[in-house]
Amino acid sequence: MIVGIIGIGLIGGSMAIDLKRRGYAEKVLGVEKEPVNAEAALRIGLVDEVVGVEDCIDRSDLIVISIPVGAAVKLLPQVLDRFKGKGYDDKIVIDTCSTKSQITRSVHYHPYRGRFVATHPMAGTEYSGPWAAEPNLFDGRAVIFANAEESDPKALAIVEGLYDTLNMRPTYMNADNHDVHVAYVSHISHVTSFALALTVLDKEKDEKHIFDLASGGFSSTVRLAKSSADMWVPILTQNRDNVLRVIDTYIDKMKLFREAIANYDEKAIAELICEANKIKKIIR
Amino acid sequence: MIVGIIGIGLIGGSMAIDLKRRGYAEKVLGVEKEPVNAEAALRIGLVDEVVGVEDCIDRSDLIVISIPVGAAVKLLPQVLDRFKGKGYDDKIVIDTCSTKSQITRSVHYHPYRGRFVATHPMAGTEYSGPWAAEPNLFDGRAVIFANAEESDPKALAIVEGLYDTLNMRPTYMNADNHDVHVAYVSHISHVTSFALALTVLDKEKDEKHIFDLASGGFSSTVRLAKSSADMWVPILTQNRDNVLRVIDTYIDKMKLFREAIANYDEKAIAELICEANKIKKIIR
Repeated sequence: MIVGIIGIGLIGGSMAIDLKRRGYAEKVLGVEKEPVNAEAALRIGLVDEVVGVEDCIDRSDLIVISIPVGAAVKLLPQVLDRFKGKGYDDKIVIDTCSTKSQITRSVHYHPYRGRFVATHPMAGTEYSGPWAAEPNLFDGRAVIFANAEESDPKALAIVEGLYDTLNMRPTYMNADNHDVHVAYVSHISHVTSFALALTVLDKEKDEKHIFDLASGGFSSTVRLAKSSADMWVPILTQNRDNVLRVIDTYIDKMKLFREAIANYDEKAIAELICEANKIKKIIR
Repeated sequence: MIVGIIGIGLIGGSMAIDLKRRGYAEKVLGVEKEPVNAEAALRIGLVDEVVGVEDCIDRSDLIVISIPVGAAVKLLPQVLDRFKGKGYDDKIVIDTCSTKSQITRSVHYHPYRGRFVATHPMAGTEYSGPWAAEPNLFDGRAVIFANAEESDPKALAIVEGLYDTLNMRPTYMNADNHDVHVAYVSHISHVTSFALALTVLDKEKDEKHIFDLASGGFSSTVRLAKSSADMWVPILTQNRDNVLRVIDTYIDKMKLFREAIANYDEKAIAELICEANKIKKIIR
């Protein structure tokens, strides 16, 4: 199988590595609009060739769109349009974006909708670009198939095989539910990290040595604040309503803490912390 | 040297391990009010003996107070009082608490003030109790000496030797400045993690499977929410004014995000994220 990857960054590049060395792809074609990234992808050996978008669509059996979701929503219909010249069963396209409502809506009525499989591999780091790609990134993590019933069963099976090669655990979900869930377990974490970084950086303007004291706890809490605007601006705007709802709940919780601390109310603080501790039953 | 450790939890227990095996302490006495913890400390071999507080003070050359800061503020004057019966140079007491203003104030005028060295080793995990103790916990991390000029130079030198044995980098700081700094680089991280846990746990009441989707980013951001109320209630109340100031700045930053997202203002979101990204220059 020839796999074409549009966007050779953290996700696309990491997929390229494992799909090739685990034998799922006999050849990997890459599309990368940034020349410096394209050159790096070739030099690191993530892809066999860097080609143009149309060339990639024409020559690949399976196309992976792994670019920021704003651009992906524009590109996907163009990819399906180009499938029209071929036999219906010839090609498959998937995306790997972190929001699923808008991208599935964008091609809902497309005559080649069945050849698209909407997926969200829940893996990654706070880094981006081809240099961030790494082997085994996806092993053991969850992958969500959104609105899988809108994809052709044969196309779906092939994509399930792809994620099986990556050792991912498949979960099936409605696209709108997906976007609610990721607002809670991913998007809000990024917003809280960004806000934490901004808070501490503000203080740092006056106090140059403040970070000498930063311990491991701070580093892990603020880690996601290194994530790129290119990726996160479209996620946060596309998932606006869900994200706003979670931010509001979050600010309410912060205010409960603020009030309890302001009142020296040790009992209330202890209750909030004990309730928060229940997260132990859920994450390691 | 005989070292007495009052409170054999994560910090006290980890110190006991490394001070003994690295030869700083020939014997480690432990004080632990929870019988189950005391038994565990002996069984794991963290301390040589579990003794009462007075026995510990009388038999130890150096006493480490590593209990929650509320209890530590009450205990410290009692320890110094008991030093009175001995020669002035006989004994030293240190604390390892995360806030320093109140504990240094509590003995500022004590005639044996010089025999107390206020320290804050900036190391730890989100776990607590003797089971959480581990070797090499402190290696390479920072330790703060607060108001070191109020300690006798000889006592200070001996405690510097203790932290040198633990491979910690010493920093010297006024107690009030310390409390401002840790509000930014430690206490706020804990409050944001607690609030994040509460936010997501709220949602979980309706959606049982939400955590199937939790990725590594969520886990690292929420990790500190496992921290114990015993430790954190006194920290947050003792450092109330600083913590409230940081919480207010933090809520302001969250509201900037909220407004930019609500307005679909991609430029404003991108600016906030790019500013937050500057945290890269500071933490790995």
